[in-house]
Amino acid sequence: MKRAVEELGHSESFRGYGPEQGYEFLRSTIAQHDYRDRNIEIADDEIFISDGSKCDCGYILDILGDQNKVAVPDPVYPVYVDTNVMAGHTGQGTKDGGYEGILYLPCTAENDFVPEPPKEHVDLVYLCFPNNPTGAVASRGQLAQWVEYAHAHEAILLFDAAYESYISDPEIPHSIFEIPGARECAIELCSFSKNGGFTGVRCGFTVMSKSVLARTENGRRLPLHPLWQRRWSTKSNSVSYPVQRGAEALYSQEGHKQVRALIDHYMGNAKLLRGAAADAELKAFGGVNAPYIWVETPDGLTSWEMFDRMLRELNVVITPGAGFGAQGEGYFRLSAFNSRENAEEVARRLKNL
Amino acid sequence: MKRAVEELGHSESFRGYGPEQGYEFLRSTIAQHDYRDRNIEIADDEIFISDGSKCDCGYILDILGDQNKVAVPDPVYPVYVDTNVMAGHTGQGTKDGGYEGILYLPCTAENDFVPEPPKEHVDLVYLCFPNNPTGAVASRGQLAQWVEYAHAHEAILLFDAAYESYISDPEIPHSIFEIPGARECAIELCSFSKNGGFTGVRCGFTVMSKSVLARTENGRRLPLHPLWQRRWSTKSNSVSYPVQRGAEALYSQEGHKQVRALIDHYMGNAKLLRGAAADAELKAFGGVNAPYIWVETPDGLTSWEMFDRMLRELNVVITPGAGFGAQGEGYFRLSAFNSRENAEEVARRLKNL
Repeated sequence: MKRAVEELGHSESFRGYGPEQGYEFLRSTIAQHDYRDRNIEIADDEIFISDGSKCDCGYILDILGDQNKVAVPDPVYPVYVDTNVMAGHTGQGTKDGGYEGILYLPCTAENDFVPEPPKEHVDLVYLCFPNNPTGAVASRGQLAQWVEYAHAHEAILLFDAAYESYISDPEIPHSIFEIPGARECAIELCSFSKNGGFTGVRCGFTVMSKSVLARTENGRRLPLHPLWQRRWSTKSNSVSYPVQRGAEALYSQEGHKQVRALIDHYMGNAKLLRGAAADAELKAFGGVNAPYIWVETPDGLTSWEMFDRMLRELNVVITPGAGFGAQGEGYFRLSAFNSRENAEEVARRLKNL
Repeated sequence: MKRAVEELGHSESFRGYGPEQGYEFLRSTIAQHDYRDRNIEIADDEIFISDGSKCDCGYILDILGDQNKVAVPDPVYPVYVDTNVMAGHTGQGTKDGGYEGILYLPCTAENDFVPEPPKEHVDLVYLCFPNNPTGAVASRGQLAQWVEYAHAHEAILLFDAAYESYISDPEIPHSIFEIPGARECAIELCSFSKNGGFTGVRCGFTVMSKSVLARTENGRRLPLHPLWQRRWSTKSNSVSYPVQRGAEALYSQEGHKQVRALIDHYMGNAKLLRGAAADAELKAFGGVNAPYIWVETPDGLTSWEMFDRMLRELNVVITPGAGFGAQGEGYFRLSAFNSRENAEEVARRLKNL
């Protein structure tokens, strides 16, 4: 990144407006390393660089219609619902914190926090695996069910793979495109925040395959790729050049090594925290293929009551599950994103719960 | 920027998710230098940092309704119209390249390329001064007319000030907020691309005053500031930290000096090109308070015929005016954004036209 900044300071190496979809050096690196090296057919120009996965969650609605029936897992990362609310795609708020017009897919201990496709028709489904907040992952078979549903219903799957690099189980897919047929129905959102620590650098990407078709109001089936291409061309001048060089560096040998070390560090925290939760006789999920541990509140406490108790008794801040949706009530999230020292300290304090 | 990159490499100075509206260090610097030092009342939290002014042109529609009657100058920077077309705010395309439903405000030699407010009602007006592509500027009196119109019609002015640093005439306002009453009806879009050469760095900002009110469907008048704040909180994690430090550096003593030198350089080119156009007996406008020179095509050529002629006869690439709107037909744009050597060479070749 420093070298890239230096380049911008000299007229011979200066770079002005770049390709709106991202520089070829980064798009091809991603397509090769994250997809083609894993035998997934993704072309360079199916990768679109963005200033973060959160942004792409909102941007994607720019090219989708207002009348789509939307399904979201519950609990889940709140941005999926909020961006739809802000775009006017939902009805009124409901008592349990939800919104009319959205189909919520309950993720509970009973279904291992992986929802099955619904019986009814929806046009757009948000899926996030490894999941924030539950830490659950979906098996190949479970994802195949969703791809099948999408084909049967001409639905689009928005697959958020922000935490894919935390998967340790070799049987768990890292990308929706590992599932046959996904190229025709899925859009994948990816982030460098969680593997490269890019939360402040801001870079992510979306995989929009040229085979994804969407149904128009008059029943035609048209590719989304040209619309997405146009969206970027008209509404952005892509991501800062030094930032794109930084993202490229994550794929170098040294970058890869550092990313691995960072993930191993966080997953070491996850193991500690999972163990401590179990020792405290809390019912805990996740934390094996994801940096989040999803914990049932004890003694029938609400998730905010548990927040208060953890804060007052242990001086530990947790995330109340209710913030992720109605089904998050009665749970809280422990995050592995911390120093080892802090994780160990939390583990120690959990003994006094 | 290099120092900021270095900071991100150490856990003690690492910065993750920053404030979604931009860091206080940058917001306060902008508000102080660009506004309060010029006796314009703008608070730090009325500045919103973005990844470029082009992006903000599109983002702003996120918080405005779909039924607004929109007015745009013609010719003008195409993004204003295109983002509205993509959001479904217009009707069909028309023969002359326009769109039904948009009110075009002709900018012609007769009105010195500064349109007067229309007789009819509109809800949203895009204004861009210094103008791309005509290089025209609006006087205090002309802008006051627009502010008056906005108050009378409860309309919003979207004022694109991307080229404000090119203004040399001390009588010409740099900001719409120099006009009394603008705080209640105007939103200002600003860019670091044109003063700091940030085309590849990507940073700009929008000024959203807390006094701007917009009319809801049921006739209430509500402030846009909380909506804009929410839009950024939900749909973004702001701009890359090193980029924000880069923008801050533009306001340092050394940064200011370099920006001045860059603008003087480009305006030297503009003077050369204007002179050469006059010597070639072309009718030329702009280029005094703006880096663009707007030139009438000779011999009744269309702007694309002129493009061909310049390319074939002189090996010079110009921008055909028709690309900026129907009223751009019969004109072409010369840009001062070049090396002195290239500008001198173009000036030489224009003699052979």
